[in-house]
Amino acid sequence: MTYQEMIEKEAKLPLGERMDFVAIVTPNHMHFPPAKMALENGFHVLSDKPATFDLKEAKALEKLVKKTRLLYGLTHNYTGYPLVKQARDMVAGGKLGKIRKVVVEYPQGWLATHLEASGQKQADWRTDPKRSGAAGSIGDIGTHAENLAEYISGLEIKELAADITTFVKGRKLDDDGNVLLRFKGGAKGLLHCSQISVGEENNINIRVYGELGGIEWHQNEPNTMLVKWLEEPMQVYRTANGYLGSNAAAATRTPPAHPEGYLEAFANIYVNFANHIRAKLERRKLAKSDPALDYPKIKDAVRGMAFIEAVVKSSKNNARWTKLAK
Amino acid sequence: MTYQEMIEKEAKLPLGERMDFVAIVTPNHMHFPPAKMALENGFHVLSDKPATFDLKEAKALEKLVKKTRLLYGLTHNYTGYPLVKQARDMVAGGKLGKIRKVVVEYPQGWLATHLEASGQKQADWRTDPKRSGAAGSIGDIGTHAENLAEYISGLEIKELAADITTFVKGRKLDDDGNVLLRFKGGAKGLLHCSQISVGEENNINIRVYGELGGIEWHQNEPNTMLVKWLEEPMQVYRTANGYLGSNAAAATRTPPAHPEGYLEAFANIYVNFANHIRAKLERRKLAKSDPALDYPKIKDAVRGMAFIEAVVKSSKNNARWTKLAK
Amino acid sequence: MTYQEMIEKEAKLPLGERMDFVAIVTPNHMHFPPAKMALENGFHVLSDKPATFDLKEAKALEKLVKKTRLLYGLTHNYTGYPLVKQARDMVAGGKLGKIRKVVVEYPQGWLATHLEASGQKQADWRTDPKRSGAAGSIGDIGTHAENLAEYISGLEIKELAADITTFVKGRKLDDDGNVLLRFKGGAKGLLHCSQISVGEENNINIRVYGELGGIEWHQNEPNTMLVKWLEEPMQVYRTANGYLGSNAAAATRTPPAHPEGYLEAFANIYVNFANHIRAKLERRKLAKSDPALDYPKIKDAVRGMAFIEAVVKSSKNNARWTKLAK
Amino acid sequence: MTYQEMIEKEAKLPLGERMDFVAIVTPNHMHFPPAKMALENGFHVLSDKPATFDLKEAKALEKLVKKTRLLYGLTHNYTGYPLVKQARDMVAGGKLGKIRKVVVEYPQGWLATHLEASGQKQADWRTDPKRSGAAGSIGDIGTHAENLAEYISGLEIKELAADITTFVKGRKLDDDGNVLLRFKGGAKGLLHCSQISVGEENNINIRVYGELGGIEWHQNEPNTMLVKWLEEPMQVYRTANGYLGSNAAAATRTPPAHPEGYLEAFANIYVNFANHIRAKLERRKLAKSDPALDYPKIKDAVRGMAFIEAVVKSSKNNARWTKLAK
Repeated sequence: MTYQEMIEKEAKLPLGERMDFVAIVTPNHMHFPPAKMALENGFHVLSDKPATFDLKEAKALEKLVKKTRLLYGLTHNYTGYPLVKQARDMVAGGKLGKIRKVVVEYPQGWLATHLEASGQKQADWRTDPKRSGAAGSIGDIGTHAENLAEYISGLEIKELAADITTFVKGRKLDDDGNVLLRFKGGAKGLLHCSQISVGEENNINIRVYGELGGIEWHQNEPNTMLVKWLEEPMQVYRTANGYLGSNAAAATRTPPAHPEGYLEAFANIYVNFANHIRAKLERRKLAKSDPALDYPKIKDAVRGMAFIEAVVKSSKNNARWTKLAK
Repeated sequence: MTYQEMIEKEAKLPLGERMDFVAIVTPNHMHFPPAKMALENGFHVLSDKPATFDLKEAKALEKLVKKTRLLYGLTHNYTGYPLVKQARDMVAGGKLGKIRKVVVEYPQGWLATHLEASGQKQADWRTDPKRSGAAGSIGDIGTHAENLAEYISGLEIKELAADITTFVKGRKLDDDGNVLLRFKGGAKGLLHCSQISVGEENNINIRVYGELGGIEWHQNEPNTMLVKWLEEPMQVYRTANGYLGSNAAAATRTPPAHPEGYLEAFANIYVNFANHIRAKLERRKLAKSDPALDYPKIKDAVRGMAFIEAVVKSSKNNARWTKLAK
Repeated sequence: MTYQEMIEKEAKLPLGERMDFVAIVTPNHMHFPPAKMALENGFHVLSDKPATFDLKEAKALEKLVKKTRLLYGLTHNYTGYPLVKQARDMVAGGKLGKIRKVVVEYPQGWLATHLEASGQKQADWRTDPKRSGAAGSIGDIGTHAENLAEYISGLEIKELAADITTFVKGRKLDDDGNVLLRFKGGAKGLLHCSQISVGEENNINIRVYGELGGIEWHQNEPNTMLVKWLEEPMQVYRTANGYLGSNAAAATRTPPAHPEGYLEAFANIYVNFANHIRAKLERRKLAKSDPALDYPKIKDAVRGMAFIEAVVKSSKNNARWTKLAK
Repeated sequence: MTYQEMIEKEAKLPLGERMDFVAIVTPNHMHFPPAKMALENGFHVLSDKPATFDLKEAKALEKLVKKTRLLYGLTHNYTGYPLVKQARDMVAGGKLGKIRKVVVEYPQGWLATHLEASGQKQADWRTDPKRSGAAGSIGDIGTHAENLAEYISGLEIKELAADITTFVKGRKLDDDGNVLLRFKGGAKGLLHCSQISVGEENNINIRVYGELGGIEWHQNEPNTMLVKWLEEPMQVYRTANGYLGSNAAAATRTPPAHPEGYLEAFANIYVNFANHIRAKLERRKLAKSDPALDYPKIKDAVRGMAFIEAVVKSSKNNARWTKLAK
């Protein structure tokens, strides 16, 4: 059954019997068409990132979401980790003071060789501009880094200067990117991502420094977060402890040091999205702080595509400062 | 509905409609009665540890399991981690040489104060000899350590010398235990567990040293295992990489550095147990190396209770060497 | 020149020209004779550990030190690390509350093979009962662990139950030891040391838990100490920061994160000992809290030998509880 | 006594009685004048970094060193660590394959507040353009990062794009810098340094990735280096083990896991420089691989100043790519 057939068939079912939302987990070029059709037929959408093939599609999607007033979620799953939520809340609560610097990285090594030549499925489409879009590593993992930085810091990237590279001969898209960041309000930063950093796993990580404190989090040990202070010893926050805030607690299933992982973080995006749908079905109004509203939305989708476009453009212009399109 | 009613009701249903197995997750004194009734009514059983209230019950259970030829599983969930399976396979494959020393620890801090006085539910029954059994920390977490040590090393504890303590005034059971171990075949070891080690989470961990190499694993970072060699640099094994063996791979759901946690480890016990049941239903004979057979069984259940009994007895005799009952 | 000739020659020189003290860095059986002769000729002594060949010699040495009123220091160098001093001060200041549990380890792997058969100099004398004494690993590294535990906890080991082993065929002394500890005042503990733990470097480490908090320190990363609390996040203390106490500060030479190591720790013992000598020469009275008094002394020397004797005796008696001789 | 008086006085002494070299440890603006006078009077020079106040002085110094044929050393002390030498040797030996990416960082937090306003001596001159030069953090710590990257990778930075910032109000020089790097031969990189990264100590660190492998080293744990491979588990190299090469061994004083630190690394620069002087005095010709030649020299001095100049210029031009002057 094609997605078209599925959507048509479901759309004919009465409310209560038909599906609640469409989850899109296809390669990038196949994100927008099913999202569009789902929305047009009255279904909420939860989509893989990056949201669309290019920025133009993302803006069309945004219009459609606004018009249909349906829910749209984007699985930037790393924001589902309890300690990432804790970091965001600490920044928002002013615990670190005014933010000055953000360093965000997403190093991988799995494309250090010409893996796509072997026909490996994941490598095949991710390095193919027809299915992946204008960027390789920047679209696949750089957007996760961009989203994580904005989620935790609460700041918007204003402009960037990017130097992206294709290291592996024969590859059609970038497999490494180094980016200088300037945030609105004066904070500075660096973002780098790589698929040729031999020996690195999916180790997305971030450091945020404010006037009063700093935080550091790494996905390869996601239940630990370092919290740094001006004059006091560094603290080690661990998932599921009583000293964490309510959002971290709400995103946690197990007692302290019963490590939670990637699947639970991913599930947290789904849970919140599902709870939001449920509230809509039950016509309940959610408080602004309700965890059900805590998942990446169409705004993040557009920003991700604007980020990709800006990086590619900046890099083509020899790392000239480039603003993210609105 | 009581468990009795449930079992009676289900037993009346025809095969294919009735439940496949009973999962027991009650306090210790309520492990044996439902297990017994389930087995007597033809149901497989998957039970929390320790298996029973005392060794006598465990032996009765063992007889019943043998007689009914039904499946019995015990959720020593830490053996569900991929790298724990890798460790076991490396020892079994002779990679570390003959095993000489095992150090296994399970430190916690959550009972450092008289928490049960507050009526906290978990603290309440776990410190109550009527519901928990003859031991506190030794039964609750020491048995996990005992099981992990035997699982990875492939060795049986022959005898032990134990010094257990109740540090918190008013508590009725031990909240700390230090145990010297002697394994069959000559290996030596230490086991210690604690509920009063302030600041420690559920950090069960183990080190095993053989003539050629050693391994080290900690639950608070379960996707990492250190592997140590005589003359070569230490290696860091990480979940989900291609260099791991087939059992570790079979127990893994996600790509490298997408951390898996406690829930997945726990689920691995359930998965294997369920696959064993399925094989029985389909009258398929499983190879000895089939992952479906890799879960703690009635033998582990009896050993756990023999361990508790030996520790309590040894400690009463001022840490006299005490053999584990057969 | 022999040590006898040196001491005789120096003793004839006038004060101010002759040496200030004798440093003894020979194998164990050659600790007492030069120490004795030096003291009898009016020289202070700074000696390697263990202090003597056996407890009897240690007691004779103690008498001599008391009689001559000369200074005697013992290079338990691990107590020279700034964070070890910080740990001791935090315990003494009541920050951790009443101490309940001490876990101290000294694992090494360098004698996992029959290295002494190759004539390697260090292995040769350390495994030779005629030069090393009644114990191998227990004397060489177990005494460091014993000293570190008493230094930081401020508690005396009352009795112990030991199980020591010689794993390598042909070796004459123990190369591994597991020991249960009972401290005066009710604290419990474990001490284990090993020379056959493949892949372990000189990683002496300690954990101390009180009613309110705990500390953890490892020599392989000596500028970091973990501090654990009942309800608050774990803290990471680092050498040379302003939040440390005066004794840690006095033992530090460089700014934060300019790591200090083994040589500086060792030097700290020498510095304090030298400052004590200087005060004596200048007839200055030192306050009890003066860092110049902070080095292991004859009392530690006797305790170390009593520890060795008790471990060997306990192990011969199948780990029977054995008191440390006074 | 002024340095002028000292040099004049020493210059009058006969060879063998006069000093062998001058060590310069003053603020930056006072590096060149004494270096110049020392060289002109026949003395070798070992100087703090950055070598001079500006690039012009560095080039004058270079001429003088060439003309006098005297030795000039620069204390980029981090290159004195054994594992840094091991990393350089592994890269030079082709173990990592062709280098693709270098990430080098030097984060500090000690100037997160307006410390110089308090008159603190170190903060005072380091933030003063008259004594520190054209750059703050870039000159003080960025040059260390630049030197470490070139030392280990064996590659020269060709051009850079820099965005430097003064975050603390009232400060006269940059306290943070983010820099994109392009190396000769096609490798890419990032360098960032900061004095406002709250809670960071002197944690200079580097990651280098080649086609076959990668290395990672952090000064806050300098005796550990991670070595990463395409298909094999990550390895942990530790100072003083037998598997390390001869240069790492020559720079080590103690057995494995007797941690060495900053002072020993610093001393290694002095030792090599002193051995080079000795060889000259003894008219011995040194092999190209002799450790005595392994210390930063006038070429590094000029590159450091060219780096500072390029960063400041690039940043003034809004991060325009800027070549390092020859």
